[in-house]
Amino acid sequence: MPEGSAPVQDLPFPEVLGVGAEWDVAVCDIVRAGQRLDRHGWVPATAGNLSHRLRDGRIAITRSGCHKGFLTGDEVIAVDAGGAVVQGEGRPSAETLLHTQIYAKFPEAAAVLHGHSVASTVLSLALREDALVFSGFELLKVFEGQHTHDTTLRLPLVDNDQDIARLCTVVEPLLPAMSMGYVIRGHGVYVWGNSMDVALARLEGLEFLLACKLEQRRIPA
Amino acid sequence: MPEGSAPVQDLPFPEVLGVGAEWDVAVCDIVRAGQRLDRHGWVPATAGNLSHRLRDGRIAITRSGCHKGFLTGDEVIAVDAGGAVVQGEGRPSAETLLHTQIYAKFPEAAAVLHGHSVASTVLSLALREDALVFSGFELLKVFEGQHTHDTTLRLPLVDNDQDIARLCTVVEPLLPAMSMGYVIRGHGVYVWGNSMDVALARLEGLEFLLACKLEQRRIPA
Amino acid sequence: MPEGSAPVQDLPFPEVLGVGAEWDVAVCDIVRAGQRLDRHGWVPATAGNLSHRLRDGRIAITRSGCHKGFLTGDEVIAVDAGGAVVQGEGRPSAETLLHTQIYAKFPEAAAVLHGHSVASTVLSLALREDALVFSGFELLKVFEGQHTHDTTLRLPLVDNDQDIARLCTVVEPLLPAMSMGYVIRGHGVYVWGNSMDVALARLEGLEFLLACKLEQRRIPA
Amino acid sequence: MPEGSAPVQDLPFPEVLGVGAEWDVAVCDIVRAGQRLDRHGWVPATAGNLSHRLRDGRIAITRSGCHKGFLTGDEVIAVDAGGAVVQGEGRPSAETLLHTQIYAKFPEAAAVLHGHSVASTVLSLALREDALVFSGFELLKVFEGQHTHDTTLRLPLVDNDQDIARLCTVVEPLLPAMSMGYVIRGHGVYVWGNSMDVALARLEGLEFLLACKLEQRRIPA
Repeated sequence: MPEGSAPVQDLPFPEVLGVGAEWDVAVCDIVRAGQRLDRHGWVPATAGNLSHRLRDGRIAITRSGCHKGFLTGDEVIAVDAGGAVVQGEGRPSAETLLHTQIYAKFPEAAAVLHGHSVASTVLSLALREDALVFSGFELLKVFEGQHTHDTTLRLPLVDNDQDIARLCTVVEPLLPAMSMGYVIRGHGVYVWGNSMDVALARLEGLEFLLACKLEQRRIPA
Repeated sequence: MPEGSAPVQDLPFPEVLGVGAEWDVAVCDIVRAGQRLDRHGWVPATAGNLSHRLRDGRIAITRSGCHKGFLTGDEVIAVDAGGAVVQGEGRPSAETLLHTQIYAKFPEAAAVLHGHSVASTVLSLALREDALVFSGFELLKVFEGQHTHDTTLRLPLVDNDQDIARLCTVVEPLLPAMSMGYVIRGHGVYVWGNSMDVALARLEGLEFLLACKLEQRRIPA
Repeated sequence: MPEGSAPVQDLPFPEVLGVGAEWDVAVCDIVRAGQRLDRHGWVPATAGNLSHRLRDGRIAITRSGCHKGFLTGDEVIAVDAGGAVVQGEGRPSAETLLHTQIYAKFPEAAAVLHGHSVASTVLSLALREDALVFSGFELLKVFEGQHTHDTTLRLPLVDNDQDIARLCTVVEPLLPAMSMGYVIRGHGVYVWGNSMDVALARLEGLEFLLACKLEQRRIPA
Repeated sequence: MPEGSAPVQDLPFPEVLGVGAEWDVAVCDIVRAGQRLDRHGWVPATAGNLSHRLRDGRIAITRSGCHKGFLTGDEVIAVDAGGAVVQGEGRPSAETLLHTQIYAKFPEAAAVLHGHSVASTVLSLALREDALVFSGFELLKVFEGQHTHDTTLRLPLVDNDQDIARLCTVVEPLLPAMSMGYVIRGHGVYVWGNSMDVALARLEGLEFLLACKLEQRRIPA
């Protein structure tokens, strides 16, 4: 059984790590997570972006325009809580504000993942509703504070917008009630966790549920 | 052709192994099986659990809350026939009793695998019946004592329940007649074998058949 | 473009190889081909069997009951043209006669592959016809003597039978006209080539075409 | 977000490379790209072909009849702008003229990729239209000069023809307006970029969109 409430890793970084080592671990976590998302087919082309918050508040995030399945250390740069680059070259992901918004709202959030899957793209474009509703799946237990399949969770669907600041204002009021993350219509999903491992587990759980929903639409009831 | 009756490995452990070495082999088998299930996409997030019974009766089982595709040695602990931890730290899988129930019922069972697949989840939720019936598939021969495709086997579907002890009482009367394993609705499958290789072969055979069933529902008859 | 008529490898074995080295190459080709079929998901559980004919007439073939994705050297044994074991321990695949039948009929055949895929299983069970007909696919050019997509090829579908000798008598009259190989209903495909690489290319081409056929049935015309 | 306009790699080859080293890099890029396409399942059997233009005008291209997932250095040969072999043994891909046509039309093009996918094959055969139209997908931004999902792009579908010179005359007038590449009906896609990485990103973006289109046809609106 999945157990979102029993995180794979309780702390994003071992206390013993110095600041320098912590940065190296964050970069390594992002590179490995990118390779994992690529194997799942969730970061096609140069899609997706990944970030990791350090204890000093810096946010390590993928540089814009690179393939997330083949990241190198210098393709991870650092931004501050406002999204301004404080370390590294090149500009951060155009969607950096969607990451900083999550970190600002959830103090325990240590990692944010954004991926593009066929399931999230097709389902969000097929539905006019403002959310996708899940109930009865054992995997719902991967999400924060869930202890049974016998529950109903909502995954908000927000319209896509190239104006990220404006998109943030649409997402902002929805964040407090979010247990699964959210989907930008025709674009992809955003999930987070108190460690990279937990964020990855949430993403895998969410994509599994989206794959089930898509499959349920394919077969006659 | 698949041959469940000609097991890949006749003994779960070579007789020559000492108790210590046997434990190491059991852990290694579980770690490798977890990696295999992960490549198949059957252990998303922290889903699934795997166990292996040693000759001294101890049951090596995955610790709760970790990703089964990236297991480390200390994420495998030992429980006794009653499910009490006798070795290692952390609590065992919440579904440990479903493993011990199988070992108690089948003296030759040496490995139990529980995975979550999109096919088992969607099919079990789509059907109100208490079993999924298979016939005419060559792969039915992977299951114990089956020697022809020209047969009919039932895969029991039991409702999901967070009270595992209660779930065990529902599964108990069904075990004697089970040849394929069983499915917990909206949750996943349980299979076992007289070695880890046989359990893995059964799981692959069962998931292949579930994938065929799902495909048959997708296409017009 | 695929080019079945321009084989990847013209000779199954370099002339320079001694008989001993030739055996080693044949075993290596079979082990690697098994790993390839496994990555494609065409040898679930202990399904499928692979063989390679040596210049001295011996046929290296997989032993019964092992997983074809994890073959070891001693899981490949040798049989003669009649299917009798002449080298190695354990019994050969129960379907050995289907391999020897192909080698007897096609003198240039150097490798035979039998795999189980969801597409071949579901399509063959869904159709009452005695063949699946393909036309207009560029990939038809992977098959012997095909130089255009603008052609029509028939893939025979024969009913499954646990009596392999009897199954051979059903397949025998169909062999001369076979350009793609054949499918045993609810079971899997048989393909061959004048080298292991060509046999693998044929199998990949055939499974690609079967995947297309299945997809065409999924979507409304 | 994908950013076709912010290429993964600005130059196909570092200026510092000598001509010899440049050839080695081109071969290496082609071999790695072939392995990538193979993992995606886009080069079954001996399908597909890949090329890379060097600064001196030579075009490194895959030899005919080999598997693109297992390329060796000598399976990459060089042709001139007219398609004549200037380096290496064996004949170039039968579709070499479709590569040289793209290089002649687009001076910045440094890599051309042709793959066969189930999605491109099935969709192109299912549609009578002369193009597939995409709009509202975030991934449309992977293509040259696209900065929003709120756009509409056309992917031309041309009928398959074994006479490549004649096929070129059909493609020629369509090239100037092509932003996504094109599809040969029942055959596969052609994409290109100002570096191998950009060409690969375009191919992944295009195949992702084709997978979405296919999925949209599978589910009831």
